[in-house]
Amino acid sequence: MSEISILESLRARLGPRALIGDDCAVLPCAPAGKELLVTTDLMVEDVHFRRSTHKPADVGHKLLARGLSDIAAMGGDPKYCFVSLALPKWAGDAWIARFYDGFLALANAAKVTLAGGDLSHADKFAGDIIVLGEARRGESLKRSGAKPGHAIYVSGTLGGSALGLSTHRGRAWQRHLRPEPRLAVGRFLRTKASACMDLSDGLSIDLHRMCVESKVSAVIDHPLPAFPGVTLEHVLHGGEDYELLFTANAATKIPATWKGVPLTRIGTIVKGEPGVVTFFGNPLPVKGYDHFR
Amino acid sequence: MSEISILESLRARLGPRALIGDDCAVLPCAPAGKELLVTTDLMVEDVHFRRSTHKPADVGHKLLARGLSDIAAMGGDPKYCFVSLALPKWAGDAWIARFYDGFLALANAAKVTLAGGDLSHADKFAGDIIVLGEARRGESLKRSGAKPGHAIYVSGTLGGSALGLSTHRGRAWQRHLRPEPRLAVGRFLRTKASACMDLSDGLSIDLHRMCVESKVSAVIDHPLPAFPGVTLEHVLHGGEDYELLFTANAATKIPATWKGVPLTRIGTIVKGEPGVVTFFGNPLPVKGYDHFR
Repeated sequence: MSEISILESLRARLGPRALIGDDCAVLPCAPAGKELLVTTDLMVEDVHFRRSTHKPADVGHKLLARGLSDIAAMGGDPKYCFVSLALPKWAGDAWIARFYDGFLALANAAKVTLAGGDLSHADKFAGDIIVLGEARRGESLKRSGAKPGHAIYVSGTLGGSALGLSTHRGRAWQRHLRPEPRLAVGRFLRTKASACMDLSDGLSIDLHRMCVESKVSAVIDHPLPAFPGVTLEHVLHGGEDYELLFTANAATKIPATWKGVPLTRIGTIVKGEPGVVTFFGNPLPVKGYDHFR
Repeated sequence: MSEISILESLRARLGPRALIGDDCAVLPCAPAGKELLVTTDLMVEDVHFRRSTHKPADVGHKLLARGLSDIAAMGGDPKYCFVSLALPKWAGDAWIARFYDGFLALANAAKVTLAGGDLSHADKFAGDIIVLGEARRGESLKRSGAKPGHAIYVSGTLGGSALGLSTHRGRAWQRHLRPEPRLAVGRFLRTKASACMDLSDGLSIDLHRMCVESKVSAVIDHPLPAFPGVTLEHVLHGGEDYELLFTANAATKIPATWKGVPLTRIGTIVKGEPGVVTFFGNPLPVKGYDHFR
């Protein structure tokens, strides 16, 4: 059993109605000229965070950041969010208040309205974030639009979150605790990128996924933008950077930075077996995060 | 800490932007003439179901039914659903396939499209259902519209789910395992009811909640429609019947049944302290289900 196999068998059952595949579902029930984006993301105690190392405000921030990052990956504007919480006994009033401190500070900064949710008790904390956003009709970015010859880019730097998770120290740890959803970059890319997704599970697995959706191969032949102090393993396979991975037609000018965030070319889309990624001449193993491997 | 206190403190923080209070959030980002309804509901192992007594198809059916029931309570048409699953090791491929059997059979019957979700591992199963629906602008039913003089009704019969949970036998157990969201009744009530909600936690707590939202009191002075074999405790305080509780202006004719579902008058809304419910002359204690009491 793997995450990919569960999704594949579900897709096979749903047939042509399947909307699964991108960071958000794109729904037609939106105002004229717009489409509605919907994403949902789980965060589970001892899977995505530990009570001993993550402050409640960090958990609140990160839960919302994961959902906003999916909206950013589609080039959308986040509008409303919902949060369902399964709360264990140790999560008392003070913990919950500080959880919402972190959550609502980011909601205010991103101009997204908390519009509902659900509460249950449980043995361990689990939170599900749902974010609704909008994009102009036909402009939301998909994973499936990468074509041979398109240049591959990433925003920001890679590997910082994985380094932070291993050291629990310094700027890398802050990067892990407080990821910044790349909403401004996503908006900028709406009319520029041919494909886009967020880097939640690691470059090797996420670029593989994009190539599968686009039915292409990829070549990485440029130096990767690395967070200070990381190893190659962190850069290639580390999850939770929440940077954007995108492609653009060779004729499209992509600036070196957008609103202070570096945009770095890392390679090129090529014809070939769907999903195959080559790293400086060698096949790149798919080693990012899969919940069920 | 109680569910109500958590929501109250959150409401106080969110101020005028708070949309919390009804079974769904009502959002303006919908096509002209429509409003978008969004609901989210958690289902946690050993809180909402037990692995030893609930088959995977029952869990799938019930998770979606809980979400659809919220759409029914608002008088809406369900359109899309999303399901996030935290899966323990015991939930292997066969369990997941049968979970989706139950889930998708109800989705097909209700004409709702599964449009996405998320997967994580966990120690215990948790599922979060998100349903998006539509109603004509201004027609979605709220908890806050009940006014003194309005008649109070319930659909179907009460207490069956609580009886089934205590006996694990017969039709009552089937009622607990396979609740039927009252979508047809909800649609019928759009232009008839002044207030509506679904009975998920028990009549005493849910009618109390409606009266709080509407700033009124209520008098129950008609016999309650009871599921065969239940006790008064089951009828007054038993949860998970997923029937509709609604009010209507005295001038509005409500038929005795709609599409085979009984609609029974149980009392009247009166002026008084918000939330107070009187049952044949005596104050009714609020004894339904609160996760944190």
